[in-house]
Amino acid sequence: MSGPLFRRLCLIGAGLIGSSIARLARERGDIAGTVVAHTRKPETLARIRELGFADVVEEDAARAVEGADCVILCVPVGAYAGVMAQIAPHLAPGCILTDVGSTKGSVIRDLAPLLPPGVHLVPAHPMAGTEHSGPDAGFATLFEGRYTILTPLPGGDRAAQDKVAEFWRRAGSTVESMDAATHDKVVAIVSHLPHLIAFTICGTADDLAEETREAVLRFAASGFRDFTRIAASDVDMWRDIFLNNRDALLEMLARFTEDSHALARAVRWGQSDFIEDRIRRGRRIRRGLIERKQA
Amino acid sequence: MSGPLFRRLCLIGAGLIGSSIARLARERGDIAGTVVAHTRKPETLARIRELGFADVVEEDAARAVEGADCVILCVPVGAYAGVMAQIAPHLAPGCILTDVGSTKGSVIRDLAPLLPPGVHLVPAHPMAGTEHSGPDAGFATLFEGRYTILTPLPGGDRAAQDKVAEFWRRAGSTVESMDAATHDKVVAIVSHLPHLIAFTICGTADDLAEETREAVLRFAASGFRDFTRIAASDVDMWRDIFLNNRDALLEMLARFTEDSHALARAVRWGQSDFIEDRIRRGRRIRRGLIERKQA
Ligand SMILES: NC(=O)c1ccc[n+]([C@@H]2O[C@H](COP(=O)([O-])OP(=O)(O)OC[C@H]3O[C@@H](n4cnc5c(N)ncnc54)[C@H](OP(=O)(O)O)[C@@H]3O)[C@@H](O)[C@H]2O)c1
Ligand SMILES: NC(=O)c1ccc[n+]([C@@H]2O[C@H](COP(=O)([O-])OP(=O)(O)OC[C@H]3O[C@@H](n4cnc5c(N)ncnc54)[C@H](OP(=O)(O)O)[C@@H]3O)[C@@H](O)[C@H]2O)c1
Repeated sequence: MSGPLFRRLCLIGAGLIGSSIARLARERGDIAGTVVAHTRKPETLARIRELGFADVVEEDAARAVEGADCVILCVPVGAYAGVMAQIAPHLAPGCILTDVGSTKGSVIRDLAPLLPPGVHLVPAHPMAGTEHSGPDAGFATLFEGRYTILTPLPGGDRAAQDKVAEFWRRAGSTVESMDAATHDKVVAIVSHLPHLIAFTICGTADDLAEETREAVLRFAASGFRDFTRIAASDVDMWRDIFLNNRDALLEMLARFTEDSHALARAVRWGQSDFIEDRIRRGRRIRRGLIERKQA
Repeated sequence: MSGPLFRRLCLIGAGLIGSSIARLARERGDIAGTVVAHTRKPETLARIRELGFADVVEEDAARAVEGADCVILCVPVGAYAGVMAQIAPHLAPGCILTDVGSTKGSVIRDLAPLLPPGVHLVPAHPMAGTEHSGPDAGFATLFEGRYTILTPLPGGDRAAQDKVAEFWRRAGSTVESMDAATHDKVVAIVSHLPHLIAFTICGTADDLAEETREAVLRFAASGFRDFTRIAASDVDMWRDIFLNNRDALLEMLARFTEDSHALARAVRWGQSDFIEDRIRRGRRIRRGLIERKQA
């Protein structure tokens, strides 16, 4: 392809993910002719102007998307329905509407009904992030070497899907496609449930800390440290993820709880073989991840 | 003090922890005049001879402890009762018997009844480790900057406790004391429960991997990666820890399960405030750890 992938790229939301995309587009000439950034709060708009990673900073969402050939939603997934109500009437025919949200069933549920004719919806989820948020946190290499999952709708526009895939490849990602339901189950177990567990165990430990005069916090061994690293993430984003991947999350928690109770029962009754088998299984999966170079 | 802390230091078990102590004693002249190492398997004995970190390698546990003024048990905690039956009659009066086991109530339960008169028991737990095991895995700096917890018995010998504390300070550790029951609760929440959870979620994910044609393993996001790091640990050691800290572990799992169900219920019923509060709490604890420089 010659020239940039998109003529006018509009980012709705410019926090960690949105500002990383803007910085990437600025760094590489082959992504967008013009980058428009919209965000909600006046102070965030001001900060984005200061940081200077967007060509146009627009306080009105409807005006931001006007004339854009690609719009990427980069806001917490709980804000999608409200944002879509504002922008839908202003999306140009032929425009690609995509996103970076961590849940995909809810995104399709919230966006598809309002989609104007001729606008192509291509839901996407870059599996990249840090524990920081906001426009200062982004960086152009965030997506390098990570997976981005597309969950295209059945019968969706192939050319639009190819363009979104090409965008993520230029960002350094490996692109995979699957249906939204599979995506939501997979991320429920590899990311959302681990976060729910991490947030929970921090609270459980905090209760105990009162009983043990803070010894818990003092002796947080490596095991617990890994949990608290996870637990440092953004409040709005995680509330929205939990609420918008509810079914898959509750199903995975139920499976996990059954499995943890089976292990607990073996501990109670001294069933060494069962315990050893569970530990060996964990090690095997660990080895599988290392072989896939994901560890 | 002039001269080494111990004349003849005997290590029962020389895997990750035992061989790290031996290497440390070899590196620093002020810990032991002679280091004796005993281990169970002929191949491990041969490997210890090759690695050369002990002055004497002894295949018989009873002979190994003879004449030692300090004996450190460095075997999985499930092996303590068997080892103690072998060595107890051969411990010299005035000898300090200590250990590195990850559980402390069980250690006192298994060792105290067989303790010969004049032998001083000082249970200890260095909060240091890696996911590797065996005599090749050890290194002299393993304990540097980490906590070591002593759980001295009420009415125990003060001089012996001071010597064990001094040993761990020379190893680079910060030494703290508490009763065995508090220790067992604290490590149950900061280390044993996280491991139980990590072993379990790996299995839960593995079951799902079959359904989603391995997508789970391919997309293991950072959340899940931290869990699998924990899950890579030694089978015998963790089986023994679970079985020997059973009561505290099951209590902490029960508390954690209640707490996770409370969060799940809030997700099911869309109670944003409750969810946000849990997430904020996790972040607060995280900050607490960072301030303590343990993160
Ligand atoms: N962080 C990760 O690890 C990660 C990874 C993969 C995907 N994601 C997904 O990426 C999306 C953005 O996450 P992020 O990490 O970039 O979050 P972030 O750093 O907190 O940024 C969120 C952005 O959305 C705006 N925003 C928030 N609420 C809004 C609302 N109700 N209406 C309009 N704008 C709103 C914020 O602007 P104001 O300051 O003006 O409110 C900000 O620009 C989320 O859907 C998340 O699930 C995140
Ligand atoms: N690894 C950690 O993260 C960590 C941290 C703090 C405390 N600890 C505690 O330290 C102790 C040792 O752990 P480690 O990591 O050093 O384990 P390790 O590397 O697996 O070494 C265990 C040693 O114990 C010997 N051993 C095993 N079973 C035995 C038995 N039934 N009778 C006699 N000797 C036996 C092994 O010798 P053979 O090869 O001859 O069997 C080996 O020398 C455990 O009590 C553990 O709870 C471990």
